[in-house]
Amino acid sequence: MTFRAKHLLGIEHLHPTEITTLLDLADRYADHNRRGVAHRDVLAGMTQINMFFENSTRTQASFEIAGKRLGADVMNMGMQASSIKKGETLIDTALTLNAMHPDLLVVRHPHSGAVDLLAQKVNCAVLNAGDGKHEHPTQALLDALTIRRAKGRLHRLSIAICGDVAHSRVARSNIMLLGKMENRIRLIAPPTLMPSGMNEFGCEVFEDMEEGLKDVDVVMMLRLQKERMDGGFIPSEREYFHRYGLDAAKLAHAKPDAIVMHPGPMNRGVEIDGTIADDINRSVIQEQVEMGVAVRMAAMDLLAQNLRAARALPQGIMA
Amino acid sequence: MTFRAKHLLGIEHLHPTEITTLLDLADRYADHNRRGVAHRDVLAGMTQINMFFENSTRTQASFEIAGKRLGADVMNMGMQASSIKKGETLIDTALTLNAMHPDLLVVRHPHSGAVDLLAQKVNCAVLNAGDGKHEHPTQALLDALTIRRAKGRLHRLSIAICGDVAHSRVARSNIMLLGKMENRIRLIAPPTLMPSGMNEFGCEVFEDMEEGLKDVDVVMMLRLQKERMDGGFIPSEREYFHRYGLDAAKLAHAKPDAIVMHPGPMNRGVEIDGTIADDINRSVIQEQVEMGVAVRMAAMDLLAQNLRAARALPQGIMA
Amino acid sequence: MTFRAKHLLGIEHLHPTEITTLLDLADRYADHNRRGVAHRDVLAGMTQINMFFENSTRTQASFEIAGKRLGADVMNMGMQASSIKKGETLIDTALTLNAMHPDLLVVRHPHSGAVDLLAQKVNCAVLNAGDGKHEHPTQALLDALTIRRAKGRLHRLSIAICGDVAHSRVARSNIMLLGKMENRIRLIAPPTLMPSGMNEFGCEVFEDMEEGLKDVDVVMMLRLQKERMDGGFIPSEREYFHRYGLDAAKLAHAKPDAIVMHPGPMNRGVEIDGTIADDINRSVIQEQVEMGVAVRMAAMDLLAQNLRAARALPQGIMA
Repeated sequence: MTFRAKHLLGIEHLHPTEITTLLDLADRYADHNRRGVAHRDVLAGMTQINMFFENSTRTQASFEIAGKRLGADVMNMGMQASSIKKGETLIDTALTLNAMHPDLLVVRHPHSGAVDLLAQKVNCAVLNAGDGKHEHPTQALLDALTIRRAKGRLHRLSIAICGDVAHSRVARSNIMLLGKMENRIRLIAPPTLMPSGMNEFGCEVFEDMEEGLKDVDVVMMLRLQKERMDGGFIPSEREYFHRYGLDAAKLAHAKPDAIVMHPGPMNRGVEIDGTIADDINRSVIQEQVEMGVAVRMAAMDLLAQNLRAARALPQGIMA
Repeated sequence: MTFRAKHLLGIEHLHPTEITTLLDLADRYADHNRRGVAHRDVLAGMTQINMFFENSTRTQASFEIAGKRLGADVMNMGMQASSIKKGETLIDTALTLNAMHPDLLVVRHPHSGAVDLLAQKVNCAVLNAGDGKHEHPTQALLDALTIRRAKGRLHRLSIAICGDVAHSRVARSNIMLLGKMENRIRLIAPPTLMPSGMNEFGCEVFEDMEEGLKDVDVVMMLRLQKERMDGGFIPSEREYFHRYGLDAAKLAHAKPDAIVMHPGPMNRGVEIDGTIADDINRSVIQEQVEMGVAVRMAAMDLLAQNLRAARALPQGIMA
Repeated sequence: MTFRAKHLLGIEHLHPTEITTLLDLADRYADHNRRGVAHRDVLAGMTQINMFFENSTRTQASFEIAGKRLGADVMNMGMQASSIKKGETLIDTALTLNAMHPDLLVVRHPHSGAVDLLAQKVNCAVLNAGDGKHEHPTQALLDALTIRRAKGRLHRLSIAICGDVAHSRVARSNIMLLGKMENRIRLIAPPTLMPSGMNEFGCEVFEDMEEGLKDVDVVMMLRLQKERMDGGFIPSEREYFHRYGLDAAKLAHAKPDAIVMHPGPMNRGVEIDGTIADDINRSVIQEQVEMGVAVRMAAMDLLAQNLRAARALPQGIMA
């Protein structure tokens, strides 16, 4: 078994071997990107459509660069300015694009589960670029690759995930991936931003940063997702930084060689002190972005291989 | 004579032989799209600019995919956020783009006649992607191809066009195309949404859906164009669906093998019952979208051939 | 010495020989564009990102066409709808894109100096597509090429720059370029739109159009930059046209073969009379747009050559 998935909808249904296969391939793409080696043949003749129902310059750009480096025709649909406004349903929009015979559909949507629903209606490969508070699998995979390259392994590490755990699909996908790879996960958040029952996922839960960061190998900061806090608790930024923002004093409790991560875009002085974000001895934030392109290239490469194989089968077997 | 037009501005000036030539080519492209056969050489080295002065995710995506499948460099200009706001005239915008030496200009504009005007000012091929209440030729051509593939012919059919005929460029272009190919056209609409004098176009006019649908081969529903009803009559959606929405009871008056069409995006429960839209034995709505890409590929292929031929002539003859 | 610059940030630091090298190459690209000769190999495998923090359909389109004609993968980032809104700093945005390994970054920004700042943070070639009231180097270069093709030379010409000099980066870049090439520059503007100290740049300053236009070879009109006049003097359009708009009577004071230029988009009847703008014996406004694509092709070609050479050096020497 290598990588058998038809879609990349979440980390939840990936087998650890599939994760390793994908990261190994992404690792090679990362090296080739640095050296400017092209791979235009991988997706040549294929059509990739980016459907972003939420704005995201950086994630969309990452998928666009990944697709173009592999030779795909890439199209960006600004779905906020689209037929949605004309009263069309999500499914009708998906069926319409599907009828144009795309090969890869990259979808971001504000509602949890919307991408899974859509994947059932189309006959191309679907990649989840973030759905509500549910999953953001390529983010977890790029985080994993960044950790593996910095630490030399992706197991038996002690990893702290800090901040707005409750509203974060990044946290959710990372908890699943890092758990599957047998790491020790510590969640640090104020009670109002910590979902209940996280112990069941095998996570240790902390309310205090200094306690939670003690001797960890990796400090993974989260973005404050104000846009997903509907009516609930919104902390003051100054108070939040004082208690949960990563600064030198708090970081001193982690291992001396602990790395610092953030999925971006950063709110400097809220989630993280600017000096730490810029410290090239600790922060791997830029490398996360770099690995993002490589991971997306690997994911689309593997899904395209499976798509080609499925299409080569007789129709009856395909379904 | 095969296809002599320099631009595709409307159905009005196309000869039936030109329509057949274009549909024959589109038919082949449709089959190749299904089998994933590429034709990157057809528009290789050519620049296609999509100028949409009205938003349209689906039509723009269709033209973009069509151009990229044929190897063109495709550029989307978001004309609403553009120089127009800075006080520039339509003609100046057109002359500016023309000076960049594009080969194909795809234009959608809210004013009837704007695309014709623009075509007189540039020296590339212009495709009308919808202008006001005037024409939408590629929509009529894709509808024609869908009908021809479903019914085996495009003449001597009885075709009902139902709904907001008054505000519909889709209806206008379809009436002309289907008339040229010698079909019987029935228009069904409430009096407020029916233009006067339609009998002169050789159409039969009905106010009652059941009467109008009697024994037709094709039921073509229109979208309610609320955005084009300036101050006039706007029906309540529930009342409209009751009298003019396509449901099983009304459809029972058509021939048993009648096909159901809609140009999209659909207002389910307003123009059409969702069950009928999804009934793969009756509805060809997804195939319309699929044929859209093929028809646009054929149109751009033929216009590019004429453009190359004209450019090869000595300058004096070209004009 | 031919062209040694690593970035194209402004005219200020370009040597006259570099300007001539670039214009010579652009001249050849202009001819090839007219004849439809392709050069897909020049930037093949390279990634060009257009980051426009201000809307500009025409300039962005020009850079996009230029990049695609040379075979680059071109990506447009709509920076107004982007992470900027999420509180990210300009530098973080730049570092993020830089981590994706682009080769060419084309940047327009409302703040003077923002593009220079950004260029210090990335390791790819940066092209300034206009920053605040500071510079717009490709506009000055395309104006220079247009003049050189119309007049047969780019030195010892008498050139009038007329209108809103105070808010114009186009004027600033042109004054520097035309000065370096040893032309006589006359600035014409109402006192409120004329920066002080322009004599120090070797310019003659005029308040009266007829006097300023006397015997010039080139009349370069500027756009009224209302969007950059914060709270200050805004002239009435009618009054402005009467005194500073270019019409036949005023133009009669220039040389009989003087050419008329405008960077666009034009406000007809404000800065310029429509008849003069459309007079193909005097106006070279469309040719300016045409030369814009050629100049951007040349600039990206030369910067890409320097980038490839720098990357081929051992790491220690590169910095």
